[in-house]
Amino acid sequence: MKFEEKALETKHVFKGKVIDLDVETVILPDGKKATREIVHHHGAVGIVCITENEKIILVKQWRQPLRKATLEIPAGKIDPEEKGPLNTAARELNEEVRLSAQSFEYITSFYTSPGFADEKMFLYRAHGLNSVEKNLPRDAGEFLNIFELSMEQVEEEIKKGTICDSKTLMAIWYWKMNRIKE
Amino acid sequence: MKFEEKALETKHVFKGKVIDLDVETVILPDGKKATREIVHHHGAVGIVCITENEKIILVKQWRQPLRKATLEIPAGKIDPEEKGPLNTAARELNEEVRLSAQSFEYITSFYTSPGFADEKMFLYRAHGLNSVEKNLPRDAGEFLNIFELSMEQVEEEIKKGTICDSKTLMAIWYWKMNRIKE
Repeated sequence: MKFEEKALETKHVFKGKVIDLDVETVILPDGKKATREIVHHHGAVGIVCITENEKIILVKQWRQPLRKATLEIPAGKIDPEEKGPLNTAARELNEEVRLSAQSFEYITSFYTSPGFADEKMFLYRAHGLNSVEKNLPRDAGEFLNIFELSMEQVEEEIKKGTICDSKTLMAIWYWKMNRIKE
Repeated sequence: MKFEEKALETKHVFKGKVIDLDVETVILPDGKKATREIVHHHGAVGIVCITENEKIILVKQWRQPLRKATLEIPAGKIDPEEKGPLNTAARELNEEVRLSAQSFEYITSFYTSPGFADEKMFLYRAHGLNSVEKNLPRDAGEFLNIFELSMEQVEEEIKKGTICDSKTLMAIWYWKMNRIKE
């Protein structure tokens, strides 16, 4: 079966700080027309930090789309001027949790919502964590607290719904799978 | 630290078939103002189907936001008139892969992009798969092919980038963790 949809016309609906929104008219494989709502995003990076005493580092912050505060792994948007997601990982690790890493191990990458968005998330594990000497400035309007949670505490926060996003659940599953292996 | 952001004003930028977009002006914990771009979505369901001969059922479809065809687990948007995500799971299993399940086991749920969207995804494992007697109609503009892949084939498609979205990777990690346990 031929799948490809061809864009006939693109309407730029919105240009924002975090996302842009286009509505595309496409020709379907059967020749009919349809519209596709597409959110454009520069992509993001999430970082798995496991401490020497087997805890995961999480940040608590307000998420206005969810109307609540969540616990998530350190993460942030890729600046289009940054040369590759590893630079984003190093910057966000400093900005959000004031740490540097000796190395980053690539875990996986994924599209968060392929039905309506092109946001791609890169997941890394940070090795050799150290406190930074010089704090990078946080984004305006970024308020967060840093936590270290054991696997048992993590399970509790998942039940409560405070840990509730895909990249953080994947970080925890990755941590769990690695503990089984070790 | 107090985190909450309070909405002062909401501008409805776009109302679509799949998403709506609002821009909210909020008051930050320090009293300053900021804007938040928020995509509203009714939520979605993804279904993990493992066959008796240890293969996972995936659908191939065109994803215009990614400009490519992907392999994903059967999934679909929650219709606001459906009473709960389990009904969505049963409907999508029929529409997309022409199967019914004797039961659905809840795996997890998560927000796909908590920074800019309220989309929540519910992940279920389907048990007791059978061919359906009556095919439900697919959505207009929905073209897909059905595949059954072994774990080895899945790993190959992840490398190629055909399997590339969060819910499908979580489905595969869940499958992997269960195989370790068994």
